[in-house]
Amino acid sequence: MSKKITKRSDNYSDWYIDIITRAQLADYAPVKGCMVIRPNGYEIWEKMQSVLDGMFKETGHRNAYFPLLIPESFLKKEAEHVEGFAPECAVVTHGGGKKLSENLMIRPTSETIIWNMYSRWINSHRDLPLLINQWCNVMRWEMRTRLFLRTSEFLWQEGHTAHATKEEAVEETIRMLEVYKTFAEEYMAMPVVDGVKTESEKFPGAVDTYTIEAMMQDKKALQAGTSHFLGENFAKAFDVQFQDADGARKYVWATSWGVSTRLIGALIMCHSDDQGLILPPKLATKQVVIVPIWKGDAESGKVIECAHKIKEELKEKFRVHVDDRLQYKPGWKFNEWELQGIPLRIEIGPRDIENRVVVLARRDKREKLQVPIESISEEVGKLLQSIQNDLFTNAKDFREKNTFTVDQYSEFEEKVVENGFFHLHWCGKDLCEEKIKGKTKATIRCIPRDSAKESGKCIICGDNSPQRVLVSRAY
Amino acid sequence: MSKKITKRSDNYSDWYIDIITRAQLADYAPVKGCMVIRPNGYEIWEKMQSVLDGMFKETGHRNAYFPLLIPESFLKKEAEHVEGFAPECAVVTHGGGKKLSENLMIRPTSETIIWNMYSRWINSHRDLPLLINQWCNVMRWEMRTRLFLRTSEFLWQEGHTAHATKEEAVEETIRMLEVYKTFAEEYMAMPVVDGVKTESEKFPGAVDTYTIEAMMQDKKALQAGTSHFLGENFAKAFDVQFQDADGARKYVWATSWGVSTRLIGALIMCHSDDQGLILPPKLATKQVVIVPIWKGDAESGKVIECAHKIKEELKEKFRVHVDDRLQYKPGWKFNEWELQGIPLRIEIGPRDIENRVVVLARRDKREKLQVPIESISEEVGKLLQSIQNDLFTNAKDFREKNTFTVDQYSEFEEKVVENGFFHLHWCGKDLCEEKIKGKTKATIRCIPRDSAKESGKCIICGDNSPQRVLVSRAY
Repeated sequence: MSKKITKRSDNYSDWYIDIITRAQLADYAPVKGCMVIRPNGYEIWEKMQSVLDGMFKETGHRNAYFPLLIPESFLKKEAEHVEGFAPECAVVTHGGGKKLSENLMIRPTSETIIWNMYSRWINSHRDLPLLINQWCNVMRWEMRTRLFLRTSEFLWQEGHTAHATKEEAVEETIRMLEVYKTFAEEYMAMPVVDGVKTESEKFPGAVDTYTIEAMMQDKKALQAGTSHFLGENFAKAFDVQFQDADGARKYVWATSWGVSTRLIGALIMCHSDDQGLILPPKLATKQVVIVPIWKGDAESGKVIECAHKIKEELKEKFRVHVDDRLQYKPGWKFNEWELQGIPLRIEIGPRDIENRVVVLARRDKREKLQVPIESISEEVGKLLQSIQNDLFTNAKDFREKNTFTVDQYSEFEEKVVENGFFHLHWCGKDLCEEKIKGKTKATIRCIPRDSAKESGKCIICGDNSPQRVLVSRAY
Repeated sequence: MSKKITKRSDNYSDWYIDIITRAQLADYAPVKGCMVIRPNGYEIWEKMQSVLDGMFKETGHRNAYFPLLIPESFLKKEAEHVEGFAPECAVVTHGGGKKLSENLMIRPTSETIIWNMYSRWINSHRDLPLLINQWCNVMRWEMRTRLFLRTSEFLWQEGHTAHATKEEAVEETIRMLEVYKTFAEEYMAMPVVDGVKTESEKFPGAVDTYTIEAMMQDKKALQAGTSHFLGENFAKAFDVQFQDADGARKYVWATSWGVSTRLIGALIMCHSDDQGLILPPKLATKQVVIVPIWKGDAESGKVIECAHKIKEELKEKFRVHVDDRLQYKPGWKFNEWELQGIPLRIEIGPRDIENRVVVLARRDKREKLQVPIESISEEVGKLLQSIQNDLFTNAKDFREKNTFTVDQYSEFEEKVVENGFFHLHWCGKDLCEEKIKGKTKATIRCIPRDSAKESGKCIICGDNSPQRVLVSRAY
């Protein structure tokens, strides 16, 4: 507890890393570019997994597990795919003390091994749709890494679906994008812009890549999840055909979609402050922590007992923890749980017990409120809901305040130095996209789905543009 | 559905593989020795995970995630450990297009990387005990593999705990062994013998390895879980010391413990029959399947509606599925759900509706029972409980019937051909242990914890033996 957290305003990067290390969310691993997710961080991932997994199952998906190692030849079957991923692969050359006859790649993503299996499993239209998800680790060799946001190994889920028609596959791509958007906004309290990536930014092997993009507190964008319409690319690469009801053999249409432990980084950077982490109540493993306060041993028994009674009352509806450790003082505990981002703290001392009241302290606004013990369950419920809502509203207000519609390149160049989201007209040419990036380090994050079909002139070349795109510097 | 399942009595190995492939639990992967766990199989693993995870958390453990790749030098820090695992490792030599300066091993188990991290995290007695579990994939290059039982890559959990005293660490080792035993017996309905491994069979790097051993239907043993007391071995290898309350610097005491997807293989081989899988109700994702029966379209609506009504009534207490697919006949569905091992089937037709009855068919005994619709919830509850109990009792009876206490080597040699569990006297010498194995392929599975301290003469050399050991051929 000795080292202070760097202030966001002083150095945003250091602040981010300080939060992670001080709150013991993750640690650097001895293997370059890898991380250890510590229990405090893994707990957040478990909550995310459990919510997302429920959403996947409600939309008809089932989990499975495919091998970690992919033969090099598989990766090569889809031209764009191998070009995108081969340079990032970790390669196994020896196993069981012998050199292997073929190199094996640690999966950077599993399309190739999964579509190899699908070629065995899919024969008839009755086998479709095939809706499978996998929770696993993947590896992409990274030069410049940052805890949670970009590490060589990370945890994620990858959905891989197979469909009889193009329409169904496109529908699935959008459905899962919307699942991600719902999760980001309703659970992470993190507003996102959803849209489609440009040709140069799409997933290697995809026809279209859809994305959700969030604004961090330094006004940079973070890609929080992607959903790919893969067309017939992988079906053709792995010769996956099915006999349709009309008797004809047809290629299968595919999608894939994924989110990763990167979401933990997004969560931190979206809500936290100079005191530490701020967790939205829906993703907090501990939503409420009760800190009993006493002077001298004589008082302690009664106060601790009361704290546990309150826990008993609350635990049906909320995830509650009593911090009754004797070796730490209340002030230390307050700091500790604020650092950990626990949404609500209940303070209770001997005088409170006499007066039949407790103090509720909300983490996000650091406001305190005295409430009667009798109405505690109701008040806790209201406050948690209010915290969840306020986190979203604040993040959304922040994003709106820092989103700009700009038509003059000079204005954009001036403003982008301070970061933010920019709605610009773009003609659709690679060259203009590269120019934006080359000059400003900002990239086209997506063509927003809700973008009005407003025609205009490309901010770079002045050619016609059918609609505005979202431009920002990004993680 | 065309290919029949090989009979257990004809070929037990083929029967086992047939169940797995026909019930679509797993498939061979294109990478040698690896498997794909298909949704029907993964569902069983998810149930196992959820129960075990709850038990780990109740005993104070938290989950974390450590890197997949371990520097070769780490593995070498504990002499026995590297000797045991290095020959089985898959080795990453290249990453990001370059040869690595140090080879990285895909974790065969994570003691070394975890104790490297513990050396950073543990300083004071206040940091202890440290109780961490990890759910992950591991890899051990195997020459002869069998789906679920022995594959190069498998999924497991590995607990790694650090303690201030030897006593606490030993207590933890036994506590987790008992958690495994409870899980095996109460959830998997699989009786196990718990005991300690001999010196030659223990985990590389452990002081003591405890095990639970189950009898399969071919009377061979299967090691279903292990819990290791690691002494100070890893603390010394990674220099993990703590300052005790008395001010002295001391080495930390360690345990580790794990179970894997091998348990799915055990579950299959313990209970299933020639019709397919048999799942204990507590681990079945679908506990009850309702099959509506009708002739002609006119009847179908009413029967399907009634099936869903029953589901509505049952779903609060049980995991229920209605199979209302129009394209399959009831007989086909019966076979399919029997193959899948669903504990209970409810059949309902138009006449049943008139008579206010349904037919309950239990998977294990393949018995049918007619019950009034009014008492269906009660009857389903009773039957599921009865199935869970009967599976355990049958497995236990089978084990008792095939467990022998033998004192003459000739008798043992004759009987072991037919397999079974044997309680033999053993003097404790490696040489006698090797002789048993060399002659009969049977191994000392463990020295059972509940074994009475009965002295006798070693079945091989005739020297004094302090107690009987459990000997069996094993998977």
